[in-house]
Amino acid sequence: MIPPAAPAPRAAAVPEEIIRARAYLLRTVEPPSRDLVRLIEQHGPVEAADRLRRGAVPEALLERAAARRDTDTSEADLADAAAAGARLLVPEDPQWPGWQFAAFGNARRADLAPPVALWARGPGDPSALADRSVTVVGARDATRYGLHAAADFASVLARNGVAVFSGAAFGIDAAAHRGALSAGGRTVAVLACGPDRVYPAAHAGLIERIAATGLVLTEYPPGTTPGRLRFLVRNRLLAALGAGCLVVEAGTRSGSKRTASDSLALGRPLMALPGPVTSAMSVGCHEMIRSRQAELVGRPEDVLEIIGRLGIDLAPERVAERRPTDGLAPGTLAVHDALPARAAWPARRIGEIAGVAPDSVRIALVELEERGLAEYHQGLWQRPARRSGP
Amino acid sequence: MIPPAAPAPRAAAVPEEIIRARAYLLRTVEPPSRDLVRLIEQHGPVEAADRLRRGAVPEALLERAAARRDTDTSEADLADAAAAGARLLVPEDPQWPGWQFAAFGNARRADLAPPVALWARGPGDPSALADRSVTVVGARDATRYGLHAAADFASVLARNGVAVFSGAAFGIDAAAHRGALSAGGRTVAVLACGPDRVYPAAHAGLIERIAATGLVLTEYPPGTTPGRLRFLVRNRLLAALGAGCLVVEAGTRSGSKRTASDSLALGRPLMALPGPVTSAMSVGCHEMIRSRQAELVGRPEDVLEIIGRLGIDLAPERVAERRPTDGLAPGTLAVHDALPARAAWPARRIGEIAGVAPDSVRIALVELEERGLAEYHQGLWQRPARRSGP
Repeated sequence: MIPPAAPAPRAAAVPEEIIRARAYLLRTVEPPSRDLVRLIEQHGPVEAADRLRRGAVPEALLERAAARRDTDTSEADLADAAAAGARLLVPEDPQWPGWQFAAFGNARRADLAPPVALWARGPGDPSALADRSVTVVGARDATRYGLHAAADFASVLARNGVAVFSGAAFGIDAAAHRGALSAGGRTVAVLACGPDRVYPAAHAGLIERIAATGLVLTEYPPGTTPGRLRFLVRNRLLAALGAGCLVVEAGTRSGSKRTASDSLALGRPLMALPGPVTSAMSVGCHEMIRSRQAELVGRPEDVLEIIGRLGIDLAPERVAERRPTDGLAPGTLAVHDALPARAAWPARRIGEIAGVAPDSVRIALVELEERGLAEYHQGLWQRPARRSGP
Repeated sequence: MIPPAAPAPRAAAVPEEIIRARAYLLRTVEPPSRDLVRLIEQHGPVEAADRLRRGAVPEALLERAAARRDTDTSEADLADAAAAGARLLVPEDPQWPGWQFAAFGNARRADLAPPVALWARGPGDPSALADRSVTVVGARDATRYGLHAAADFASVLARNGVAVFSGAAFGIDAAAHRGALSAGGRTVAVLACGPDRVYPAAHAGLIERIAATGLVLTEYPPGTTPGRLRFLVRNRLLAALGAGCLVVEAGTRSGSKRTASDSLALGRPLMALPGPVTSAMSVGCHEMIRSRQAELVGRPEDVLEIIGRLGIDLAPERVAERRPTDGLAPGTLAVHDALPARAAWPARRIGEIAGVAPDSVRIALVELEERGLAEYHQGLWQRPARRSGP
């Protein structure tokens, strides 16, 4: 369906049997599956594949694999993918974005399992691209305002070395990819269909352009067609691969909300673009900002600041420097931690809780007050009701 | 300059000597003056006026009054005001919005002193109007979008019984007043000139319409012309009189920011209307939302919710009901208060700080976790990093 692109690079270091095993596992158990991830962690991919073939795996996993485990199409899958210019990227490959996918390990939701491998097409290094990146999502039926903003933000971000991840859908997705491409920047499409397919078909040219300079990723083996569930499942990869997630336009019931909530669940900062209150396409963004789930971004520079501040591409010291409690002496910090948020206490009680002497407590409280970290009313101390920062 | 309106109501209960004294004080000391407010608190208005005339007041106050204290024009001022249809509203009057102005008592900024009286024109009861109210401010050079939104919000709010306070200026102010008037609702203009003047002159008709059904207020005696400083000083009254402050459009250096910061300093919730990120007139609003000073409002209903939640017109129970910690047993609340925000502690340590037994701490922590008020990671507990509410 897609003509072969440039020869796909392959990490020579990864043994073929691992590639084969992961290709088999990827097709045999429909993602996401924490049970499968656990099985691989315990036994390694080759042994895990063997156990699955033999049926020597926990009952729940066996049931999920029942329909496919007797047929190993990994050789054909790898050949079909290669014919479409795609390789199988595995966690054993140095280009695997392991840092990003580590966030799945802290997520509570059972559906937030990492992928066991990814089909990849294009010259981009997935790990390097994800290192400084933003995921841009939004409505398919976007307004001109939204399309313009998505392209403009993506273009400025790409010019600043940020890779723009999106889903290649109509509307905001396509505008974001195109904005990055127009700036000569890097962009990555994460699809919900096989690497030999394009969806939507009208974006065959766009996806080809993305694959030519950036990267097209998918969890689904060759021949897979997209479906509603697969789009939802795909969204967790978009959420994980971006250092932050920007929602450009979203109606009240937008699918972008799923990617947004996945991003939050994975600890990624969520950003939303405001728009006219008269536009139905901005209602979802405004809701996310109102509920404090998302930060409002008015300029691409805001995005750079947020992914720089909270992102994974900066040294931890930078993050620490921006905390309002930084530079506080340990005693003062203890007093800060003891300050009640929903009550107001006399200094004496705070001192008791913090384990700090009365005189030192008062000095600490005054310092905290100067920094806007404590408030004093009628003899009682408390945390400020409103924080002026995130 | 302005034809007399309907006969101004006068609270018969307030002795004339108090009215005269406050008219004298209002003209003699240019507001705001905390020293003057304190003098009146100590001695009452009549004795305070007498002391000021005699020069028996603290040095600082004497200096500020030096230029005017020898001339008592209170009789003429009251006559001129009456000729323009205005009365002097004093704190001794039951219609004085004392509840609202009490906020000045908690403010730290020295320039946030309450007025010692107000010239009032129109049939509205200032106290009743301020009880359920919102202050709407914004750019003079507003966009069509902003003007439309200001009128629309004001109209819906007015229809819901909320009085719309604004400054009668060009742009957002006028649109807000007109929106309220168009809905047959109540609106109040707070001016920075004498009650016998109109500013801007082009708004003579608008101000007349406001005075006919609502209220026109000013701190400045008859004949006073507006000036840059007086607009700034006036803004604190707008901030105090609204149960909340809504900024509709504001550029980066907008004067509305002053009213916004006065509102925050007086403990009023600040709201901002988002707009297209491509509009310079929305930059100020977006900044306020980003910095968490203002809540984003997308619909008039959002404003109703916020002033209902935090406003002064609702019973305190309603406010309390909306706290996420409501309904928690005292022990659980103590555990909540002991939860660290910037660290993560084992349950044992939290129990020590909260003074709650180990078994009860664990039960409390699980309850808090269910409510989204605590988070657990690898044996340690902490407050959730992001709050989903204000």
